[in-house]
Amino acid sequence: MNYTFSNRMSTMRGSAIREIFKYAADPSVISLAGGNPAPELFPAADLGDIATEYLHNEPVLSLQYGVTEGYTPLRDAIKERLKRVENIGTDNDELIVVSGGQQGIELVTKCLINEGDTVIVEEPSFIGATNAFRSYNAHLAGVPVEEDGMNLAALEKVIAENKNVKMIYTIPTFQNPMGVTMSVEKRRALYEIAKKNNILILEDNPYGELTFDGVKTPTIKSMDTEGIVMYSGSFSKILAPGLRLGFLCAPREIVAKAVIGKQISDVHTAMLPQLLAHAYLTRFDIDALIVKMRANYAHKCATMLSAMDAYFPKDIFYTKPRGGLFIWCDLGHNLDTGVLAKKAIEKKVVYVPGSTFMVDMAKPTSTLRLNYSTMSDEKITEGIRRLGEVFGEAISG
Amino acid sequence: MNYTFSNRMSTMRGSAIREIFKYAADPSVISLAGGNPAPELFPAADLGDIATEYLHNEPVLSLQYGVTEGYTPLRDAIKERLKRVENIGTDNDELIVVSGGQQGIELVTKCLINEGDTVIVEEPSFIGATNAFRSYNAHLAGVPVEEDGMNLAALEKVIAENKNVKMIYTIPTFQNPMGVTMSVEKRRALYEIAKKNNILILEDNPYGELTFDGVKTPTIKSMDTEGIVMYSGSFSKILAPGLRLGFLCAPREIVAKAVIGKQISDVHTAMLPQLLAHAYLTRFDIDALIVKMRANYAHKCATMLSAMDAYFPKDIFYTKPRGGLFIWCDLGHNLDTGVLAKKAIEKKVVYVPGSTFMVDMAKPTSTLRLNYSTMSDEKITEGIRRLGEVFGEAISG
Repeated sequence: MNYTFSNRMSTMRGSAIREIFKYAADPSVISLAGGNPAPELFPAADLGDIATEYLHNEPVLSLQYGVTEGYTPLRDAIKERLKRVENIGTDNDELIVVSGGQQGIELVTKCLINEGDTVIVEEPSFIGATNAFRSYNAHLAGVPVEEDGMNLAALEKVIAENKNVKMIYTIPTFQNPMGVTMSVEKRRALYEIAKKNNILILEDNPYGELTFDGVKTPTIKSMDTEGIVMYSGSFSKILAPGLRLGFLCAPREIVAKAVIGKQISDVHTAMLPQLLAHAYLTRFDIDALIVKMRANYAHKCATMLSAMDAYFPKDIFYTKPRGGLFIWCDLGHNLDTGVLAKKAIEKKVVYVPGSTFMVDMAKPTSTLRLNYSTMSDEKITEGIRRLGEVFGEAISG
Repeated sequence: MNYTFSNRMSTMRGSAIREIFKYAADPSVISLAGGNPAPELFPAADLGDIATEYLHNEPVLSLQYGVTEGYTPLRDAIKERLKRVENIGTDNDELIVVSGGQQGIELVTKCLINEGDTVIVEEPSFIGATNAFRSYNAHLAGVPVEEDGMNLAALEKVIAENKNVKMIYTIPTFQNPMGVTMSVEKRRALYEIAKKNNILILEDNPYGELTFDGVKTPTIKSMDTEGIVMYSGSFSKILAPGLRLGFLCAPREIVAKAVIGKQISDVHTAMLPQLLAHAYLTRFDIDALIVKMRANYAHKCATMLSAMDAYFPKDIFYTKPRGGLFIWCDLGHNLDTGVLAKKAIEKKVVYVPGSTFMVDMAKPTSTLRLNYSTMSDEKITEGIRRLGEVFGEAISG
C-alpha cells in the first residue's frame, strides 16, 4: 500500500540531532551534541527506596488509572515550590502535570494554533518546540537573539509584518541553544509588547534553576497580571529526564482545554514518576540537590570555556553562559557548520550545527551549539582541542 | 484576556464519563460506570522489587533520556509475545512503545488524518478514540455493531457515501462498550473490504487477552498481507494502567512517522514503566497472571448477568460477553438513559449512557454501558437490583 500522511506531518522529518546522536552513541566519540543532564547527580537510590515503598504500601495508587490533571499532592507541591522559588501563580492560574516539558508545548500548540497562525520564536530556538509548531502547520517567524535576549525592535517588526500572530515562544533563561539570558528590562518590555498586541507568551524554563552564581532573573510569568503568559516547567534537568515529568502553569481556561487535550493524548502521566517526584519534593532536599548540580555545570562550563580560549581561533564568537547546559558559537567567515560537522566526526567529535535551531533549517549557517553536561573534563578539553583544529583549518584554508 | 482556541479543539469538551466519575468517587456510590481493571490482581510487590533493583543497579538506564521508539529489549519482548500469542508481525511491520494505547490512537490520527477526512467507527465505540479523531476535525461516520461485529452491508454503504475515507477504527474483540466479538468471517470480509477500497484499518485490542473461556479469535492484523492494518495494544488491562504503557504495531513507514510524532508529543515513554514491563514479561509468568484475570472477570460478569436476569424487566436487551469488561443494554421503549442516569444517581448507582459512545453524542438513546470489573459481587448485585427498579419504573411509568 502507498501511505499518504496528513498535510501537517508529511514534511516532518526526524531531527538532525537524532542523526548526530547515532554517532554520539559510539563510546570512542566525544559528544558535545547532547542536551542530557549529568547522570551522576540523579538521586537514584532515594528514588529506588520511594518506588519500592509505594508499590508495596500503595499498590492501587501506584498502578491504577489516575486523573488527567495529575496527582493532586504533586500539583500542590509544584504550586508551592513555583510560588516560593519563582513567584509564579495567581488565582487566575492553574497547573497541569504533563509527561515532560515537551508535552506542555505540544498541548498548548494543539489547543491554540490553527494552520497558518503565526508563532514567533527566538532564532535560534529549541527544535523540540519549533517542530511542535511545525507539526500543526503554524507559520514560524524568527526574531534574532542578542546576549541580553530577543531583539525587541525586530520583534515589533515581525508582529507588524505577520498575520494572526498568536503566540511568542521564548526560553528567556539560559536559552537553548545560546546559553544567554534575557535581561529583566527586556522581559518587562516583551510582556508589554505582547499585552499591547493581544499575543500570548509561552515561557519555557527548563534550565532556570541551573544558575552558576545563584543569581535568578524574575520569570516573565511572575509579571503576568493580565493572564497572557503560559509557563512550561520540567523535572528533566533538576531531577531526572527518564521520569518524563513536567508541568504547565497557565490561565485556568487554557489549562482546562489542555486537560481535554491531554486526556486524548495519554489520559494521564504515569503514576510512579509522579509519586517519586512528589515524595522527593516533600521529603528530600531538592534545593540542596540543585545546588550540587549548579556547581557541577558551572565547573564543566568553565572547563569548556577555558579550552575554547586556549584552542579556538581568536576571532570565533562564543557566549559565556551564567547557567544552563549550552554554549553557542559563531565561526563567521561564511563557513557552513553542517559541512564542518562531517570533518569533526572524522576526528570523533560531534556538535549540533546551528541550522537545526533556525526557522529555515535548510540554510547553511556558521553557528553551532556545544554542550558540556555529560562529558568528563578531559573529554571536554580534548573535544574542544580537536574542534579548534577543524575550525582553524577551515578558516585558514 | 479573551482566549481563542484552535478550531480543532474549540468544541472539545470533557467526556461525559469524566462527569459521571465525580459521582463514582463517592464510596457510598455503586459505580458500574468505570473501565478500570481490578486492582487486586496488579503484581505490585513484584513490580516494587524490580523498581528498586533497577534504580539501585541501573540508575542511568532508569533515569536518563531514552529513545523515542521505546526501550529496545521491551520492544523485542513485546514483538516475541505478539508473534506467539496473536500471530502478529511480518518483516513489513515495526513496533513503537507508546504512553498507553490512547497515545497510539492519537499519533496515528495526527500522522494520517487531514481535517475533513472520514474515519469510520463502530457505533457505539470507545470515546477516547472518537475524541482523538474529533480533535483533528475528522469526519466521523458510524457503522452499527451486531452481536457478531460490524454490520458489513452498512460499512460498504458508508464507504460508498463518504469522501476521503482514510481509516476504519474497530475494537473487534470484547468491544468497548458492547462486549461483543466480531466473528472470524466478518474479520476476513472487513479486511477484504478495506483492501479493495484502499482504506487503513486501526485494530484496537486492549481486551483481547481477557477471554473467559480461553477461546481467542484471530486478530485482523494476523491476516494482514498487504500492510493495511495498524494494531494498537496496551498493558493497561493485563498488567497495570497507571504505568501508561502500550504499543503500536504497524507497517514500518507508518511507525517511522509515528516516531517523529511521538518525539514531538513526549520525546519517549517514561523509562521506569518500560523497565518494569520488560522485567515482568521476561522474568515472571504474565500468562499465569492473565489466567487469573480471566477467571476473575468471568466470575464478575456472570454475577452481573445473573442479577440482570433476576432484577431487570424482561424485555431489556443485553449482551452476554465472552470476555472483556463491559455489558451493553438497550432498554427500548424510547427511553433516554441520559435522563435515567440522574434517577440512578439518586439511588447511588452510576452507569454510562449510550450517547457517550455515539457519533452524535447529543442524540438521546435507550442504550447504556455497564462495567463489572471493580465492584464486589454484593455491590454488583445490589447495583443491578436498584437499576432494575429505575428501569422498571421508567418502562411502566
